Amino acid sequence: MQKLGRAGLHRGRPDIAHFCLLLALGSPLNMGGDLQCYIHTLQDRIIKVDSKARLPRNTDRWVSLLEQLYQEKVVPPTGPALLTLTQGTIASLLDELKADLVVALTTEGEARPMEDVAARLAAHKRPVLLIGGFADGHFSKRTMERVNESYRIERRKLEAWTVTARAIYDYERATRAQRQPAQN
Amino acid sequence: MQKLGRAGLHRGRPDIAHFCLLLALGSPLNMGGDLQCYIHTLQDRIIKVDSKARLPRNTDRWVSLLEQLYQEKVVPPTGPALLTLTQGTIASLLDELKADLVVALTTEGEARPMEDVAARLAAHKRPVLLIGGFADGHFSKRTMERVNESYRIERRKLEAWTVTARAIYDYERATRAQRQPAQN
Repeated sequence: MQKLGRAGLHRGRPDIAHFCLLLALGSPLNMGGDLQCYIHTLQDRIIKVDSKARLPRNTDRWVSLLEQLYQEKVVPPTGPALLTLTQGTIASLLDELKADLVVALTTEGEARPMEDVAARLAAHKRPVLLIGGFADGHFSKRTMERVNESYRIERRKLEAWTVTARAIYDYERATRAQRQPAQN
Repeated sequence: MQKLGRAGLHRGRPDIAHFCLLLALGSPLNMGGDLQCYIHTLQDRIIKVDSKARLPRNTDRWVSLLEQLYQEKVVPPTGPALLTLTQGTIASLLDELKADLVVALTTEGEARPMEDVAARLAAHKRPVLLIGGFADGHFSKRTMERVNESYRIERRKLEAWTVTARAIYDYERATRAQRQPAQN
């Protein structure tokens, strides 16, 4: 599964992508090598996050790392790249990833429990899940044109990091269920 | 459900309790009024967290708030208390809460999926779940003497915030399943 976020770096909320990434990178899904995370920013920058990256836990140190990334295009400057910055739209990234299913989680989508959405994702080879990491607002019309399905997973509006944690957990269970059919 | 954590405030990891609380307070369980969070520190301080508290998102601002709490014993100093600091052990808190089931999540516990643990919690009236928020180590022997059951929910060691997110999500589902029996 590939996860994309649209980070509010220049809208003052880099903490959203930070918490989401901490949860994503620490998940069994990622530790098993089955997750790849990207951040898409409002200025059409794509940050590729290495699945082995250990991010700083402190918000201000995360922001410093992002500032270094914007200057150097890759951090750390020597050794294996943990964060890589390129120019690109969500559309160009989806092409590059050869996504065979693109799902967006948004309060404007069809109401459906996350476990059902996870089963949809798990039924595909190269699924991409878009989670909005913005302080306010929704995915752009341009992005929504590339989305195959969009869902609302909770009656209440959830924070992006809660959505990230739940999506990954349910996807782990859905793929585990596929590999080991229930023995009832 | 009541959640207790043992925070590493003076061991340099206040970020652990911070992320756990952000996830807990933003959960539908908490928004529905069915969660109460406490932090227990190594120095036997108990921090009671109001379920309506909106915590700072930035780590350093969270640490400043804790420093203010240690000085004033309650923050904000006027108006409804969002954080309250008292002296106490986990045992004294469990007595006060009249817990009828105390479950600890620890890598030293019996292997069991979180959804099964959540069903155990949901079958009780005043369950308390202990999540270790320490950088290293385990619950003290003194705490474990008050624990009824302890479980390991993943083969891999998980970060406290991942455990928090999964426990709350599964508990929400377990209590929802109780209220609305599956219609198959």
